[in-house]
Amino acid sequence: MTETNTPVPGPEGARVGVWFVGARGSVGATAIAGALAVRAGLAGETGMVSRLPEVAVAGLPELAGLQFGGHDVSDVSLPKRVEALVDAGVVPHGLPAALATELARVDARIRPGVTGSERPQREIAAALTADLRAFREDNGLDRVVVVDVSSTEPPVRVTPELLTLDGLEQALDAGESPLPASSLYAYAALRADCSVVAFTPSPGPRLPALAELAETVGLPWAGSDGKTGETLLKTVLAPMFAMRALKVRSWSSMNLLGGGDGRTLADPANAVSKTATKGQGLEAILGHRVDGPLHIDYVPDLGDWKTAWDMVSFEGFLGARMSLQFTWTGCDSALAAPLVLDLARLVARAHQAGRVGPQAALGFFFKDPAGSDVHALSEQWEALRTWCAELAEAEERR
Amino acid sequence: MTETNTPVPGPEGARVGVWFVGARGSVGATAIAGALAVRAGLAGETGMVSRLPEVAVAGLPELAGLQFGGHDVSDVSLPKRVEALVDAGVVPHGLPAALATELARVDARIRPGVTGSERPQREIAAALTADLRAFREDNGLDRVVVVDVSSTEPPVRVTPELLTLDGLEQALDAGESPLPASSLYAYAALRADCSVVAFTPSPGPRLPALAELAETVGLPWAGSDGKTGETLLKTVLAPMFAMRALKVRSWSSMNLLGGGDGRTLADPANAVSKTATKGQGLEAILGHRVDGPLHIDYVPDLGDWKTAWDMVSFEGFLGARMSLQFTWTGCDSALAAPLVLDLARLVARAHQAGRVGPQAALGFFFKDPAGSDVHALSEQWEALRTWCAELAEAEERR
Amino acid sequence: MTETNTPVPGPEGARVGVWFVGARGSVGATAIAGALAVRAGLAGETGMVSRLPEVAVAGLPELAGLQFGGHDVSDVSLPKRVEALVDAGVVPHGLPAALATELARVDARIRPGVTGSERPQREIAAALTADLRAFREDNGLDRVVVVDVSSTEPPVRVTPELLTLDGLEQALDAGESPLPASSLYAYAALRADCSVVAFTPSPGPRLPALAELAETVGLPWAGSDGKTGETLLKTVLAPMFAMRALKVRSWSSMNLLGGGDGRTLADPANAVSKTATKGQGLEAILGHRVDGPLHIDYVPDLGDWKTAWDMVSFEGFLGARMSLQFTWTGCDSALAAPLVLDLARLVARAHQAGRVGPQAALGFFFKDPAGSDVHALSEQWEALRTWCAELAEAEERR
Amino acid sequence: MTETNTPVPGPEGARVGVWFVGARGSVGATAIAGALAVRAGLAGETGMVSRLPEVAVAGLPELAGLQFGGHDVSDVSLPKRVEALVDAGVVPHGLPAALATELARVDARIRPGVTGSERPQREIAAALTADLRAFREDNGLDRVVVVDVSSTEPPVRVTPELLTLDGLEQALDAGESPLPASSLYAYAALRADCSVVAFTPSPGPRLPALAELAETVGLPWAGSDGKTGETLLKTVLAPMFAMRALKVRSWSSMNLLGGGDGRTLADPANAVSKTATKGQGLEAILGHRVDGPLHIDYVPDLGDWKTAWDMVSFEGFLGARMSLQFTWTGCDSALAAPLVLDLARLVARAHQAGRVGPQAALGFFFKDPAGSDVHALSEQWEALRTWCAELAEAEERR
Repeated sequence: MTETNTPVPGPEGARVGVWFVGARGSVGATAIAGALAVRAGLAGETGMVSRLPEVAVAGLPELAGLQFGGHDVSDVSLPKRVEALVDAGVVPHGLPAALATELARVDARIRPGVTGSERPQREIAAALTADLRAFREDNGLDRVVVVDVSSTEPPVRVTPELLTLDGLEQALDAGESPLPASSLYAYAALRADCSVVAFTPSPGPRLPALAELAETVGLPWAGSDGKTGETLLKTVLAPMFAMRALKVRSWSSMNLLGGGDGRTLADPANAVSKTATKGQGLEAILGHRVDGPLHIDYVPDLGDWKTAWDMVSFEGFLGARMSLQFTWTGCDSALAAPLVLDLARLVARAHQAGRVGPQAALGFFFKDPAGSDVHALSEQWEALRTWCAELAEAEERR
Repeated sequence: MTETNTPVPGPEGARVGVWFVGARGSVGATAIAGALAVRAGLAGETGMVSRLPEVAVAGLPELAGLQFGGHDVSDVSLPKRVEALVDAGVVPHGLPAALATELARVDARIRPGVTGSERPQREIAAALTADLRAFREDNGLDRVVVVDVSSTEPPVRVTPELLTLDGLEQALDAGESPLPASSLYAYAALRADCSVVAFTPSPGPRLPALAELAETVGLPWAGSDGKTGETLLKTVLAPMFAMRALKVRSWSSMNLLGGGDGRTLADPANAVSKTATKGQGLEAILGHRVDGPLHIDYVPDLGDWKTAWDMVSFEGFLGARMSLQFTWTGCDSALAAPLVLDLARLVARAHQAGRVGPQAALGFFFKDPAGSDVHALSEQWEALRTWCAELAEAEERR
Repeated sequence: MTETNTPVPGPEGARVGVWFVGARGSVGATAIAGALAVRAGLAGETGMVSRLPEVAVAGLPELAGLQFGGHDVSDVSLPKRVEALVDAGVVPHGLPAALATELARVDARIRPGVTGSERPQREIAAALTADLRAFREDNGLDRVVVVDVSSTEPPVRVTPELLTLDGLEQALDAGESPLPASSLYAYAALRADCSVVAFTPSPGPRLPALAELAETVGLPWAGSDGKTGETLLKTVLAPMFAMRALKVRSWSSMNLLGGGDGRTLADPANAVSKTATKGQGLEAILGHRVDGPLHIDYVPDLGDWKTAWDMVSFEGFLGARMSLQFTWTGCDSALAAPLVLDLARLVARAHQAGRVGPQAALGFFFKDPAGSDVHALSEQWEALRTWCAELAEAEERR
Repeated sequence: MTETNTPVPGPEGARVGVWFVGARGSVGATAIAGALAVRAGLAGETGMVSRLPEVAVAGLPELAGLQFGGHDVSDVSLPKRVEALVDAGVVPHGLPAALATELARVDARIRPGVTGSERPQREIAAALTADLRAFREDNGLDRVVVVDVSSTEPPVRVTPELLTLDGLEQALDAGESPLPASSLYAYAALRADCSVVAFTPSPGPRLPALAELAETVGLPWAGSDGKTGETLLKTVLAPMFAMRALKVRSWSSMNLLGGGDGRTLADPANAVSKTATKGQGLEAILGHRVDGPLHIDYVPDLGDWKTAWDMVSFEGFLGARMSLQFTWTGCDSALAAPLVLDLARLVARAHQAGRVGPQAALGFFFKDPAGSDVHALSEQWEALRTWCAELAEAEERR
C-alpha cells in the first residue's frame, strides 16, 4: 500500500467533467481548490485513495484533466468561499491568490441551485438537465459525473410515485413535485446522461424510481454518505472485536462539529438521516444490536473541525469487563474532498467501462453503501481492489 | 463472524495435552482455570477465536478434552494463584471453590522449572524431556503442545553455536550451556516430539538452531509474543490510515501495567524485547519509519490491568493536521488466556495434519509473527481463515 | 489536608439518627453498609471529608454513634440490596455476611415510602412525621437528620400555594396535595423537628414555602444535588481558566451512566432537573454563558459506574486555540455515600449549634448550593473550613 | 474574576525595560510580538493575568510602555523568528508585516548571548552588565527586568563557591568560571541593578550565592519554571482529591512536545531539571509520595504544540477503584508569553515598591515557586491577590 505520484493516465485521454451539487460549500470548494492546487504543483495527493497503486491501476481519468462546474443556492463566490476556508485552517495561506484565475473560471460555471421553487419539478428538471448538457458541450467533455456534496436533507417518506419510474414520470407529467431536492438533481443528471455520486445521506439516486432510471438509461452511480471520520474508525474497530470473539456490550458516541454541516445537523429532522447511516454499520459487523447513545452536536466554535469521542465497553474471557475509548480530531472538508475527487474519477471510469447501477465495490467510501451490506473496511478494500484490477485487465485486453 | 458454542469435534477424538512453561503465572493459571470453567459450564467462550465458525471448521481437538500440566519456578500452588486472580478481578468469585479438585489435580502435574542451575544444559534438557514424555504417557495423550507463557527474557546475542543444529549439539555435548531458558524449553519440547507455542517475546524456538531442529524432527511451532492489546489496535488502525492514503506523522504510545508482566518489564533489559516486537508492526504496515516514543511502565497499583494511551498525529489533504487518540483499558491475562488455548488447539491440529516449521498462518495471534511479515490484522485473519479451510478440506478428503 | 482517623468526639456524646428517604437505593444502602463497616473496622474513611482535620475540628457527632432508618418504596430488603452492590463492584465481597445482623436491624426500621397515593397530603405528612418521631423516641436519639437520596423528580411548577407557608397550610387543610414527593418528605421532617439534607436535584426543602417553614421552626438544612463527579471537576477546572485569563469557547459534556440513577434520568422529564443543576456552575464561575452540549445517557451495561467525557475548547494569547479533554470513570454510589454521611453529621452539628435555614457553607458538597452562588470548589472549601473553625471555637467557649 | 481591558496605569508613568535572555526563542519572540500587537490594537489580552482586576489593582507599569531588548546566541533575526512562528500557528498571519518596523527596532537591541566562551566569567559578567546598563540608559528607562526564557540547563552541582556571595566573588576574582550560564546572567542582572525572573528550571538566581546577592543589592526576583500546562492542571486536580479525602494511588504522565523546548529536553541531562520541578507539586499537595511514571518526549512533528496525557488512579469509599484521565493540547509559547509579560510587570512593580528577594506571592506562575512551598493553584491565587491588594493600598497611602 505504498503511494505513487504518477497516476496511470486514463485509457483514452478522456475529458471528464465533475459537477458539484453544492459547489460553493466547504467540501465542494475544498475539492475544487485542492484539485487545482495539485495540478499546479502546490499541493500533494495525501488523502487521495486513487494515488495508491492498487486503485491507480484501474486506469482512472487524470486529476489534471478534470473540469469543474456545479449548482449552488449560495451567492458567495467560490474564491470568497476558499478565502474563508483559509481562515478556517482548511486551505493553506497563499492558495487563493495563486489559484485566483482558475477559481474565478470555475465560479463562472456555477449555476443557481434548486430552492423552494413554485415551478413544477418537471420544469426544474429540464433546466438542470440543460445546465449539465451545456457544461458538457461548452467544455468538450466526454463524460460528466454529478457529485452531491450539498447539505443533508431529512429522510423522505417513500410515497407510491417514488417506487417506480413509470409512477414518477406520471406524477411529473401531472405537474406534481414529489422528489426531494437531492433526487431531483439525480433525476436531471441521469436524464442528461451523467453518472452520479451521492456523498451525503440524502436520498438522491437511492429512491427505487431513481435506481430504476439508472438501470434504464444504463448509467453507474455510487453512494451514499461519505465515511470520513468516526464511522471509518468504527468499521475497523468493530471487526477487530468480532475477529477476536470479544463481546461488545455498549458503544457510545459523541460527535461535536461546527461549520455548515454541524448547523444543518443541529436541526433534528436532518440529523435523523445522519444518525441512521452512522448507526447501521456496527450491527452489520457485529451481528447483533449494540446498546449506547449516538449524539451529533453543533458547536459553532469548532468551525470546520470535528471532535468525536467514542467509548466501547466490552467483555472478554471469564466475564472480564474492559473498555476502549478514542478521540478523533479531524477536518471534515479535508477528509472528504480527496475522496470526492477519487469517487468522481472512479465513477467516470465505471461509466466508460459500461458499468450500470449502484457500484457496490465503491462501498469503501460510504457509511451506507449502495448495493452492498459489507461495512468492515478491510473487506471493502478487498472489493475495491478486485474491482480496480478487473478494470485494469479489461483495459489491457482491448 | 457469528459465534458457535458447539466446537466441531476433533477428527479422531484425539487426546491432547497442553504443557505450560509458567503454569502458575497469571496467563497460565487463567488459561487452566478458564478451560476447566468452560468444561464445567461455569463460563462461556468469549474471547476464544476457536469458537468462530471460520476457525472451528478446522476440526480442532475439543477444549473439554485438553489435559494440562507444566513447568514453573514458583512454589505458590495453582489453586492459590487462582485465588489471587479472584482478588485481582480476573477470575470470578466462586470459581476456585468449584474447581478445587481439578485445579489440585493439575497442580500435582506441575514440575519444577529451570532456574540458574549449575548443571549443564544437556542434563537439564534431558530432565525436561523426561517430564514431557511422562506427562504424555501417564495421561495416555496422543500429542502434547508446549506453550511458553513465562516471564519475558532479555534479547539474546546469537552466538555461532545458536546458528546451526550441529553447532548447538556440539556445544551441549561439550558441557556448555549456550541456550536462554526459553530456548532450552523449546529444545526439550521438540526432542520430546512436542509442538511449541511461543507466546512471549523470548527467543524460544526462533533461534536458527531451534528452527532447524523443528524442521529436522518434523514438528510445527508458532510464535511469538501474543498480540492482545495496544499492538492489536495498531494493526487495525495503521492499515486504515494506509488504505485512506493519509500520512501518519508520529505515533506515540504509553503502556501502564502492573502485575508480574509489568514488574518484569520494569527491568529495562527485558523491556527491550517487548518494545522491539511492539514497534515493528507499524513500519511494516505503513511502509515507512514512524516517529514517536513507546513507553512501557510498571505501575504496581494497576494489578493485572493495563491502560495504554496512544496518540497518532496524521496529515490529510492540503496538509491538514489531525489526530487520533485512544485509551485501552484491558485485563492482559483475560485477553491472553483464551488465545493461548486457541493456539494450543490449532498447533495440535497442525501437528496431527503433519505440518512442519513455523505456522505463518497463525501470525494473527502474534506481535512478531514467525514465518510472516504480515502485520495488518485483517490480512492475518484471511490467512488464518484460509488455513483453517484447508485443514477442513483435508479432513473431508480422508 | 492530611487525614486523621480519630474523629473529634461530639461535644456532648449526642445520639444522632440518620433517616434516609430512599434507604434501599444504591446511595442509601452504600452509606448504611459503609458506616457499619467503618464502625466494625472493616473499612476505612477514604472519601469522607469529615476525616480531614479542617472539618473534624467542628466537633461532629461520631460516625460510630449514628443510628439509621428510612423510608423507601422498594420491597427489596436492605441486605439483598447490599448483596446486589457486591455484584456491582461497589461493596467488597464478604461485607454483607459480616454485617448481616446489623443490616437486618436497620432494615426493620425502614418504613414504606410515599407512592402515588389517593390519600390527601395532610394525612400522608402526618404519617411520615409519626414515623420520624417514633424513630427518634424508640432509639433515644437527641436529633434526627432526614437525608433525601431517592430518585430525581422532574422540575416542579411553583404554583401560588408553594410560595408561602400560609398558602401551603391552607391548601393542605383544604385537602389538596400540592407538594412534589421530595417536598412532602421535607415538610414532614421539619414538622417532626428534624433537619434536612437534599442530596438530589428534586425540589425538597427549596420551595419558598418549605424554606419559610425551616425558618419558622428554627431548623437548618442543606442542599442540593450532590457534587460527586463531572461537575466536581468542572468546578476546579473552570476557575483555573478564569485565574489564567484564558477564554473558554465551548465546554461539551457526555455522561454515560447505568444503574438506577441512569434509568431515572433516561426519562427526559427527570433529566431536565439534572442538566439544569449541572449546567449552572460554569456560567457562575466564568462570568459568561458557555456554548456546548450536555448529555446524560443511560447505558445499562455500566451498572453503578459512570463514565463522563468533557471537552473544553479554549483560546489563549494571540488567538491560539487549545483544548482540554478529560474522562472520569467513577462509581457514583461510592462517591456519594461518604459525602452523605459527612452531611448528616455536619447538619446535625449545625442543628445542635442552633443554626437555622440553608447552610451556605455546605455548598462545597452540592451542584446547586442553597444559600450561595459560589461554585468554585476552592472557595467553597474555604467557606466550609471557616464554618467548621467557628463551630470549634463556639464549642471551646462553652 | 471578570476581565478588564483598561489596565490601571503605573503609579508614576514609569518607563520599564524588559530584557529577555533568549529573546529570539519561541517564548521571547512570542512575548515581544504579542506585546507590540496588543499595543497596536491588533491583539487582545487573553491569557494575561494582569488584565484581571484582582491583579491590575496593584498598579502595574503599562504594557504599552514596555521597552524590549535581550541576549541571544542565535543569529536568526527576531522578524524571521516571528515569521517562523506564523508557520507554526502561534502568531497570526499578517502580524509580522504589521509590526515589521518595531520588530526590527527591538532586534537591533539584541546582543550576543553567552556561549561556551574561553573568557573568564568575571569578564563575561562585566560585558553583560554593560549591555544592560546601556539598554537602560540609551532608552531612558527607570527600571529593567531581566527575564530568562532560554533553553533549560541540566541541574548543577552546588559546589562550595556557589554557596556564598563571598565565595563566588573570590572564585570570579581568581579567574574561575563556576557559574552555569543562567546564573551568570542573573549575576550580571543583579550587578546592573536589574530585577530578575527565572521562567525556566535552570538554576539562575536560585543558587545560594545569587540569592544572597539579591538580598545584598536589595532587588526582587521571581522563579522558577513557568507553570503553563500539565503541571497547572495537576495543581488544581490534586487539591480536589485532597479536599474530597480521596486517595490518589498513582499518577502517570506523558508529555509530547516538539519545538525548541522538546529538542532540548530530548537530552536526558536537561530533562532531569524539568521532571524534577514537574514532579514535586503532587507530593507537596497530597502529603505523600505518589507512584507513576513521568515522561517528557520530543516529537518533532508537533512543532510548538504540546500534548500531555495524564492518568490518575484513585480510591474512594469501601476501596472503590476509579480513574481520571486528561489530555491537554496546548501551544506552549502562547501560554508562556502572556505570563512572561505579566511577571515582568509584577516584578518591576515589586522593584519600585522596594521589595527584596524571592517574591513568594508570585508562586502562582511557577512549577517550583521560590520562597514558597505552596503548589495548590487556588492558594497561590489567594496569595497573589493579597500581594496585589497590598501594593494597591501602599500606593493609595502615598
